[in-house]
Amino acid sequence: MLKLYYAASSCALATHIVLEEVGADYSTQRIEFAKEQQKSPEFLKINPKGRVPALVTDRGILTETPAMLVYVAQSFPAAGLAPMADAFAFARMQSFNSYLCSHLHVAHAHRMRGHRWVDADDAHSIAAMRRKVPETVGGAFEMIERDMLEGPWVMGDTYTICDPYLFTLAQWMEKDGVDLARVPRVVDHRHRMSERLAVKKAIAEETA
Amino acid sequence: MLKLYYAASSCALATHIVLEEVGADYSTQRIEFAKEQQKSPEFLKINPKGRVPALVTDRGILTETPAMLVYVAQSFPAAGLAPMADAFAFARMQSFNSYLCSHLHVAHAHRMRGHRWVDADDAHSIAAMRRKVPETVGGAFEMIERDMLEGPWVMGDTYTICDPYLFTLAQWMEKDGVDLARVPRVVDHRHRMSERLAVKKAIAEETA
Repeated sequence: MLKLYYAASSCALATHIVLEEVGADYSTQRIEFAKEQQKSPEFLKINPKGRVPALVTDRGILTETPAMLVYVAQSFPAAGLAPMADAFAFARMQSFNSYLCSHLHVAHAHRMRGHRWVDADDAHSIAAMRRKVPETVGGAFEMIERDMLEGPWVMGDTYTICDPYLFTLAQWMEKDGVDLARVPRVVDHRHRMSERLAVKKAIAEETA
Repeated sequence: MLKLYYAASSCALATHIVLEEVGADYSTQRIEFAKEQQKSPEFLKINPKGRVPALVTDRGILTETPAMLVYVAQSFPAAGLAPMADAFAFARMQSFNSYLCSHLHVAHAHRMRGHRWVDADDAHSIAAMRRKVPETVGGAFEMIERDMLEGPWVMGDTYTICDPYLFTLAQWMEKDGVDLARVPRVVDHRHRMSERLAVKKAIAEETA
């Protein structure tokens, strides 16, 4: 059985939603960032990076959201969440998810995790990073709004693993200071996602 | 025919090598960062993100290295560069490439591109980011050395698209201030890669 390690309000929600979408038999294990459980010796055996999410499978442990999303989609092909037989369509999907992990999520991380990239006691630089987040994260969402989100779903008419991933990162827009008026299609997508049963179930479990 | 937009010493080299490995019919177009060609109106039509690499295909333009690498591997299955039929093996490969794009490459970018995450005139913060790079990039390579690089290739006995990608980012270790003595297996992998004909050809073209 699959087991998902997640933390509240983290990008693990994307994989959690996809596990619900495909009807997987899975369990979850919550990691409390407030208690720094992600750095505990027990968890570092699960994921040496000290991050969530991590997915325990019968063949080993997987990390990194883009990889986990494809793994779940490929393991449950009947759900049709990733067009793997079409190299170009699959690449477009992967390109979107790669932009989320390497650009949008990274921009967001500069709000609360600036200490990753400067000395932890450098208050000036950490504050400077935080101030820039509305511009960088907002810019990324505006690029998605304008050039990537086809509508109604990210890839067009077909719902794919891109949708839960975008939805998950779009949860953070208000705290990141994004001007929602500039990204109405992203906001609309977020609303459409929030009405799906799989999304409601995953969020309900994480906030119970 | 495929066409790769690249810049010197950029992560585009990974895709360039893979195009050589599979024997693709392709051309290249060099983008000069020194002339800011990546922000020219012509190039922004190719890639609105203003970044390299970009790959022109007969169905459209692809960006983001992890997606492009899989696209080339999947389009030339005889080369056997991605285990796409095995969901777990494929996910492990994708997890590695995702770590490179979202963690290692991002850490590296804080050396020369700190202005992405703070105001461009904030010399203190930009210098602070630069000083941290040997630690953050070094730490990522040490994690790869210890937990990811199976040897002789990243995924073990089979050469995959992970190898050109790791090799490409490992080109930057000296300038990033990484202590090579701490990552002997990564250095050994880099040397092994440099002896491959595809690698020699791609580098020769980019440095001609």
